[in-house]
Amino acid sequence: MFYSKLRRYLCYKKEDMSNLVQEFNDYRTKMNEVILSKDNLVIKRLWNLDTNTYAEGALSTQTKEMLGLVASMVLRCDDCIKYHLGKCHELGITNEQMYEIFAVANIVGGTIVIPHTRRAAEYWEELIANS
Amino acid sequence: MFYSKLRRYLCYKKEDMSNLVQEFNDYRTKMNEVILSKDNLVIKRLWNLDTNTYAEGALSTQTKEMLGLVASMVLRCDDCIKYHLGKCHELGITNEQMYEIFAVANIVGGTIVIPHTRRAAEYWEELIANS
Amino acid sequence: MFYSKLRRYLCYKKEDMSNLVQEFNDYRTKMNEVILSKDNLVIKRLWNLDTNTYAEGALSTQTKEMLGLVASMVLRCDDCIKYHLGKCHELGITNEQMYEIFAVANIVGGTIVIPHTRRAAEYWEELIANS
Amino acid sequence: MFYSKLRRYLCYKKEDMSNLVQEFNDYRTKMNEVILSKDNLVIKRLWNLDTNTYAEGALSTQTKEMLGLVASMVLRCDDCIKYHLGKCHELGITNEQMYEIFAVANIVGGTIVIPHTRRAAEYWEELIANS
Amino acid sequence: MFYSKLRRYLCYKKEDMSNLVQEFNDYRTKMNEVILSKDNLVIKRLWNLDTNTYAEGALSTQTKEMLGLVASMVLRCDDCIKYHLGKCHELGITNEQMYEIFAVANIVGGTIVIPHTRRAAEYWEELIANS
Amino acid sequence: MFYSKLRRYLCYKKEDMSNLVQEFNDYRTKMNEVILSKDNLVIKRLWNLDTNTYAEGALSTQTKEMLGLVASMVLRCDDCIKYHLGKCHELGITNEQMYEIFAVANIVGGTIVIPHTRRAAEYWEELIANS
Repeated sequence: MFYSKLRRYLCYKKEDMSNLVQEFNDYRTKMNEVILSKDNLVIKRLWNLDTNTYAEGALSTQTKEMLGLVASMVLRCDDCIKYHLGKCHELGITNEQMYEIFAVANIVGGTIVIPHTRRAAEYWEELIANS
Repeated sequence: MFYSKLRRYLCYKKEDMSNLVQEFNDYRTKMNEVILSKDNLVIKRLWNLDTNTYAEGALSTQTKEMLGLVASMVLRCDDCIKYHLGKCHELGITNEQMYEIFAVANIVGGTIVIPHTRRAAEYWEELIANS
Repeated sequence: MFYSKLRRYLCYKKEDMSNLVQEFNDYRTKMNEVILSKDNLVIKRLWNLDTNTYAEGALSTQTKEMLGLVASMVLRCDDCIKYHLGKCHELGITNEQMYEIFAVANIVGGTIVIPHTRRAAEYWEELIANS
Repeated sequence: MFYSKLRRYLCYKKEDMSNLVQEFNDYRTKMNEVILSKDNLVIKRLWNLDTNTYAEGALSTQTKEMLGLVASMVLRCDDCIKYHLGKCHELGITNEQMYEIFAVANIVGGTIVIPHTRRAAEYWEELIANS
Repeated sequence: MFYSKLRRYLCYKKEDMSNLVQEFNDYRTKMNEVILSKDNLVIKRLWNLDTNTYAEGALSTQTKEMLGLVASMVLRCDDCIKYHLGKCHELGITNEQMYEIFAVANIVGGTIVIPHTRRAAEYWEELIANS
Repeated sequence: MFYSKLRRYLCYKKEDMSNLVQEFNDYRTKMNEVILSKDNLVIKRLWNLDTNTYAEGALSTQTKEMLGLVASMVLRCDDCIKYHLGKCHELGITNEQMYEIFAVANIVGGTIVIPHTRRAAEYWEELIANS
């Protein structure tokens, strides 16, 4: 939201359109490096485990990423939502499926999920536009 | 938890074993009737919409019930968990799949989800025992 | 929920019907005494301030108690809900008004508020029955 | 916060002072259009219902908007807060009344509500300055 | 709360006074066994990691258990609170220190933490009475 | 995040590196003044009490600030986190201790705490760089 506005103010060019996705990934990568460099064992293992959680199993990775997404939405964590949106996009979740996930999140979590749904929809549009 | 202990104290017979499920359903039905009898339009429509949310669509009812369950777990709503556990059981979710949903909920929501996972596991065992 | 069932199991008499309200008040009073006896200044002052918050001001006590109730509902704190239901009942909130407060809480907070609405409705019925 | 700082950096003129309000409304309108264009029935109906919830009834629209605001504050949803602040301003809630709503939210929800109260107060000042 | 009342109704003897602690531990042990018997790798590793988290390090186990307790209180997870209260009791946290932790939780998390503080105080009293 | 990017876009000089800390403090001071100027008694007293909560007592100020930090992390309030990070830095919490607090918050609150840990780590780095 901020950068799309910032771009308008500062007259950025068309090729910067995928900023939301790029910026999220850049910041995430940079700060993950800072944190992991501190060698806290609990944090390192938890983050490892986080990766294992979404591995193919009795449920498919696709189903698990959808579970991760809806959980992030009802807990209203924008960055977690972005992360799972990226994964869902890679795994071929369709637009119609995505909006059904949004619907579950909005019904379970109520109208306070709406602002997060707006930002999720914006990010999802950028993921589609960039692909 | 309370009733299983109560049963032990009061020497209930074997055929009362499914109390957790029965009591949840009875209380839910009774209070839903009280609430709907008040004819509040917003509440009635929201509850209707709640049913629509899990209908077959671009995602299967099974997937949507799993989404509803994981959302209820990270939001730590025991009664919502019980409701979706019942639905997941009816729809044939396996034990292994169920524990993968529990795993996603525990990782996303943290160790505060563990006590709710205990109660979910207890209810899930009763659903299986009764079926 | 538990005690109403317990009463059924143990064949309590009609005059025990107001148990939900009585038990909530008794436990609250007993434990408040325990806590305040420890003389923790911050807790004592916060609790004092809690009382001041709902005093008549630019908004009426009635409006403030409704605000306290809806806040407790979306935060899903059953005991807080019971407390404010008791106050709203004393202050003459009607049944129709109460269900409009429930409606706001259900829409803002989503379907995870429903189980708390069931318990709120049960307690509200007891408050009315006892008055 | 961001844009007010941005304006200072970029030397915006006085007539851009109402940016917080304008930007919130613009982004909200734009993204609502994106979301509603997807024709997800559950989302459309929930959003419709959201409007009905605050309609005049046994409680006035004014009271209901205050309920929506306090619920948004304790759930710490900045955009929901902005929306209800806008409505409360339209409906003539006074400055003194507004700070009593803030007080209820801060007492019920604790000091974690303070940062949201700061942003609410900033937005409220802009609403008043623009009116 | 339920069992203390149940005991009163059913005329339990003095030596059953430590029921709250015993029941919490029994149920926890029983259900942990059920869950771990399912061999879900993510859950097993997370629970292992949970133990590591509170190990002596740059911070003492005592400080970490206090951190775990205050986190459980503001997240309003009664069973998590009981677990950390038990640990804090074993580690020699004094009554005065405990109420200062309660104070931080009540200020940060607001008055919705009060009902959880009541149950925490009750459990803490039992831990002291049993020791 | 935003300003560090903004700085890059707008070519700010090295001596502006401590912007995150400065901006947080400036905005906080400015808005606190606005809010306190309204003379709402409940808010004033709550904020006063907030200061008392962390005073030296049966627990040290250092321990209490760590409690305030972990509570803010699991409740995912970025500004509250920044405030307590500043205090912990003043009080001499080491880097290794800080990451153990982060670990408790991540385990108790789950992976939704990770994005807040990233922003906390960034702010913590700035506090160290500026000292």
